[in-house]
Amino acid sequence: MSGNRHTLELQTRKPQELVDLTSAVQAWICKTNVQEGTLSLFCPHTTAGLLINENYDPTVKQDLLDQLERMIPVQGPYRHSEGNAAAHIKSALIGTTLAVFLCEGQLELGRWQGIFFAEFDGPRARQVWLRIETKDPLLRDP
Amino acid sequence: MSGNRHTLELQTRKPQELVDLTSAVQAWICKTNVQEGTLSLFCPHTTAGLLINENYDPTVKQDLLDQLERMIPVQGPYRHSEGNAAAHIKSALIGTTLAVFLCEGQLELGRWQGIFFAEFDGPRARQVWLRIETKDPLLRDP
Amino acid sequence: MSGNRHTLELQTRKPQELVDLTSAVQAWICKTNVQEGTLSLFCPHTTAGLLINENYDPTVKQDLLDQLERMIPVQGPYRHSEGNAAAHIKSALIGTTLAVFLCEGQLELGRWQGIFFAEFDGPRARQVWLRIETKDPLLRDP
Repeated sequence: MSGNRHTLELQTRKPQELVDLTSAVQAWICKTNVQEGTLSLFCPHTTAGLLINENYDPTVKQDLLDQLERMIPVQGPYRHSEGNAAAHIKSALIGTTLAVFLCEGQLELGRWQGIFFAEFDGPRARQVWLRIETKDPLLRDP
Repeated sequence: MSGNRHTLELQTRKPQELVDLTSAVQAWICKTNVQEGTLSLFCPHTTAGLLINENYDPTVKQDLLDQLERMIPVQGPYRHSEGNAAAHIKSALIGTTLAVFLCEGQLELGRWQGIFFAEFDGPRARQVWLRIETKDPLLRDP
Repeated sequence: MSGNRHTLELQTRKPQELVDLTSAVQAWICKTNVQEGTLSLFCPHTTAGLLINENYDPTVKQDLLDQLERMIPVQGPYRHSEGNAAAHIKSALIGTTLAVFLCEGQLELGRWQGIFFAEFDGPRARQVWLRIETKDPLLRDP
């Protein structure tokens, strides 16, 4: 894979979980040596998503999962026979693509923000695809 | 319109519907001959949206529309007088922009993913705007 | 900050509010003199978001905030102790990133669309970060 693209592999541990990817994403950006540009993230799964929210107080993550569960319960009047209809709906609402700016080789996030993988039908082996659009030369091919 | 931009025209058939755009989008990408880049999609309507989800089992689409209807019913205590307040709210939640990577001239989607136009106030003539950011030369001007 | 990046400062006035940013964003684009490209918008806050929806009838904005409040009430069975758990959840659902195309120096929006900052825990001083990806030369450094 070329120097501005990467696949992040992760293993979720619970049926529903928010996994903080910020450090892993930043570590890859450092390897690319890109200083300026826009990072796009893509979740290739239909029962998971990507979001940016507070990564400081862990109750925020639990509140989000609990409220989504109240709004879109796992058990509901769904037609899809695989038992994960709610996970598909949560994925569609949370979304599967994000974009974050890079400046001086660092993710530009707000003070309290982290990048999260939202697992709605785990535990599973998952991927997140990363790509940087930049005018910088790509110095390394990690 | 220049070679990296395109307007997809579609006609929705129902009041609420998910229309799979994946083949039409891929067909246009083939015409551009772009091999590597990022495709951005934009929905210029305020009562519709764009999402990526499963395109295999059609019950997933129906479950999504039904659950959104339970959460945000067409008939509700809304002030907007045109009768489509719920459609505006669904559009804001589902979102109107997406980004998908291109590799070797193909949309990079997960195994079960498709790109959908989400109609919430149809049937109507609708558009989706496409644009590719790429370093590739644009060989054809379709 | 370089010519293709900008920070928009705003002061929200209410606990929950949609602030139309369209004119302010367009004004900055005019200053950059960029004609073609893609504008990315990023909300660096965890209790606010960005969305595109109707900017004509103000009841649409009120309906959206009211319905979100019915779905995710400020007072609820949350664990987060700061009293703004609902604002975090709304932010995650509405999303914090957007992309809009530029053509001939103008934001390409649908006829009824505007770009909104969604305040869910105001009033506060807020920012929106803007960045243009373009092949155009950047003529001015505002």
